[in-house]
Amino acid sequence: MDVDICSGCLLYPVIFILGWKISEQAISCAKQSFIDAGLKGNDMGRADRPLVPESLGLISAVVFLVLAVVQIPFLDSNVDLTLFLGALLTITSAAFLGFVDDVLNLRWRHKLWAPAVSAVPLLTVYFIVNGETSVLLPKFLRGFDIKILDFTLLSKGGILQLGPLYYCYLLALIIFCLNAINILSGVNGLEAGQTVIIGLGFICYNLIELYNGKLSEEHLACHYRSLSLIVPFVGCVFGLVRKNWYPAEVFVGDTFCYWAGCTLATTSIIGRFSKTGILFFIPQIFNFVYGLPQLFHIIPCPRHRLPRFNSETGLREMSTTRVKWSKLNVIGKFWVTAGKLTGTIWTKDLDDDELELNNLTNLNLTLKIVGPVSEEKLTTILIFQQILGCVLALFIRYYVAGLVY
Amino acid sequence: MDVDICSGCLLYPVIFILGWKISEQAISCAKQSFIDAGLKGNDMGRADRPLVPESLGLISAVVFLVLAVVQIPFLDSNVDLTLFLGALLTITSAAFLGFVDDVLNLRWRHKLWAPAVSAVPLLTVYFIVNGETSVLLPKFLRGFDIKILDFTLLSKGGILQLGPLYYCYLLALIIFCLNAINILSGVNGLEAGQTVIIGLGFICYNLIELYNGKLSEEHLACHYRSLSLIVPFVGCVFGLVRKNWYPAEVFVGDTFCYWAGCTLATTSIIGRFSKTGILFFIPQIFNFVYGLPQLFHIIPCPRHRLPRFNSETGLREMSTTRVKWSKLNVIGKFWVTAGKLTGTIWTKDLDDDELELNNLTNLNLTLKIVGPVSEEKLTTILIFQQILGCVLALFIRYYVAGLVY
Repeated sequence: MDVDICSGCLLYPVIFILGWKISEQAISCAKQSFIDAGLKGNDMGRADRPLVPESLGLISAVVFLVLAVVQIPFLDSNVDLTLFLGALLTITSAAFLGFVDDVLNLRWRHKLWAPAVSAVPLLTVYFIVNGETSVLLPKFLRGFDIKILDFTLLSKGGILQLGPLYYCYLLALIIFCLNAINILSGVNGLEAGQTVIIGLGFICYNLIELYNGKLSEEHLACHYRSLSLIVPFVGCVFGLVRKNWYPAEVFVGDTFCYWAGCTLATTSIIGRFSKTGILFFIPQIFNFVYGLPQLFHIIPCPRHRLPRFNSETGLREMSTTRVKWSKLNVIGKFWVTAGKLTGTIWTKDLDDDELELNNLTNLNLTLKIVGPVSEEKLTTILIFQQILGCVLALFIRYYVAGLVY
Repeated sequence: MDVDICSGCLLYPVIFILGWKISEQAISCAKQSFIDAGLKGNDMGRADRPLVPESLGLISAVVFLVLAVVQIPFLDSNVDLTLFLGALLTITSAAFLGFVDDVLNLRWRHKLWAPAVSAVPLLTVYFIVNGETSVLLPKFLRGFDIKILDFTLLSKGGILQLGPLYYCYLLALIIFCLNAINILSGVNGLEAGQTVIIGLGFICYNLIELYNGKLSEEHLACHYRSLSLIVPFVGCVFGLVRKNWYPAEVFVGDTFCYWAGCTLATTSIIGRFSKTGILFFIPQIFNFVYGLPQLFHIIPCPRHRLPRFNSETGLREMSTTRVKWSKLNVIGKFWVTAGKLTGTIWTKDLDDDELELNNLTNLNLTLKIVGPVSEEKLTTILIFQQILGCVLALFIRYYVAGLVY
């Protein structure tokens, strides 16, 4: 395998900087057209509520697609072009459908279809190139041998052949990632900022795997393929963060969330680290689980759960909801009690039966701990949480996984 | 080569009908969302000027992309997957940028970039898979032998190695086709209708080539690849025509023109009949050449050159422009004189110097010949012209080309 490390050392930084600079420049040029087209919204986090153009993630996505394609001739020859093109087709469809969602405001039943439609190219190509559909089970589940006729479903070494179920897993992964970025959002710079950190986490993981030198040629090729997607991506998103950071000049829109989520999922799939990839989403998973009772309306859920903007102090504060204790079911009572005991839910008794509690998102929980802060500081703290999440992901991958696998 | 003709006989009609039915159904469901999103316009060709949703070509494009991808596992094994995916990526980008144009109303300088950006994936993949970059010259140019060092630029057999120039030719082809559908438009059903006819022409050409049995395996594979794109495409556009035919329920939008033009160009490129493919655009080329003096403002060009709607009769009539003879330059005078002599330009003297003449589009020329007619009849006549154009294309390919090549 002709891995030319020097050319990689040169190529990737150049692509990163090109993505950043072109994307930042193009966003500045394009933002007026978005306002003219009615893609705009008021920034509720500032006293003067300025009008900000929306959906500018589109520009970064287009720059990324061009960069990802033009680098193809310079890629290592082991980058499997078919799988790479399938991945790009999936990412392009996701960005396309994201923009359609921004413009048409799709209903929920259509939103559910969108990720499935985008996933079709990648899954089809994965099927055609006979992609791996088996998983390694943890140590304590090994030693069994299950055969159905001639087909080995589970070998003694712990290799479980998932077959068609593996495609369901990949689809579920893409749907999760497409929504993950959207779940943890609401303040300037957060969607794009967390994406940059996760992307950098992916780059670190690929580089560690590439340079520890224990991989087969096939696995090396996977990590190169993964890097070729994630490096231009992080570059383009970095350009977007600089424009979306508080005070935001532009909003990123659903286009961004679809595009970014899909790119991260796809990168981990074609890099064959889809299980490790999910570890980098720990803050998003925590945020999702923490808020489940509200998502299922076990605890009352207001239409918006964003932190409140206090126009007097100019700071962000927890937003709250009210709940009648007697009307809560057993899960709701358990969740609130456990939250109070662990200090993860803020409550205030309004009368004998009614109490006020913070909306169950990571943003409000963070505000409970650090008190009212400026929007910029809140974003910084959340980005710092994401960095911790990535470090934790790498720790689990290299120290904990070894104990189980 | 395992060409399974029976499976093709079954597969292609099924894909065609799926494309048509899903596309027609989805357009009916989606049109209200387009109106809500502000994608709408008044139909100036009817007395009551009803509001009609715009850009519905988007729906057909999405249905096409899904169908094109899901058929991949059923395709003949000789369909080169890499080139097929490169083609799909180019088509997806074109549809995506078309929708961006519909929403953002891109300026001309950005519109020029759009086709170039979409073309990048296909050209890159064509380069990577070492696609053919030579052309066969006509008989009278053969017999020469030009070498530059060891490189044979032109062989005695008339094979000209174009190298990088070939990519410029492909790019020019994509840009031309992307604009071709847009050039000949303006009445209900015309953009989508002409596209269906050109698509059917491509299907006929592919089938003739496949069943005359003289092709190499490689060329057979090209025609199969081409069919796999064009059949779902024609199906989806057919569903759109039925909704866009007079009186139009929906407009097709720039999304459609980008998507359709790009699909036709791409189909001819991956089917290796890019020269033959252009022949099917004879009406569009005629329309473009006929109107050149107005496009270059040698003859005054009003903002809209669509046929006039006569609200009293409900019929379409020629639209006209006025010109001062003394202000025309030599090309303008020649064009008008030649048009008068050949009966292809209608004129009326207003005074000694000023005259009125029809706007130089195929629609106005057709109205000059058949007189004021209803919009539906006008579209039918133009579609009939397109059918004649396709027959002429096949005639040139099989009877005239044999004399020259």
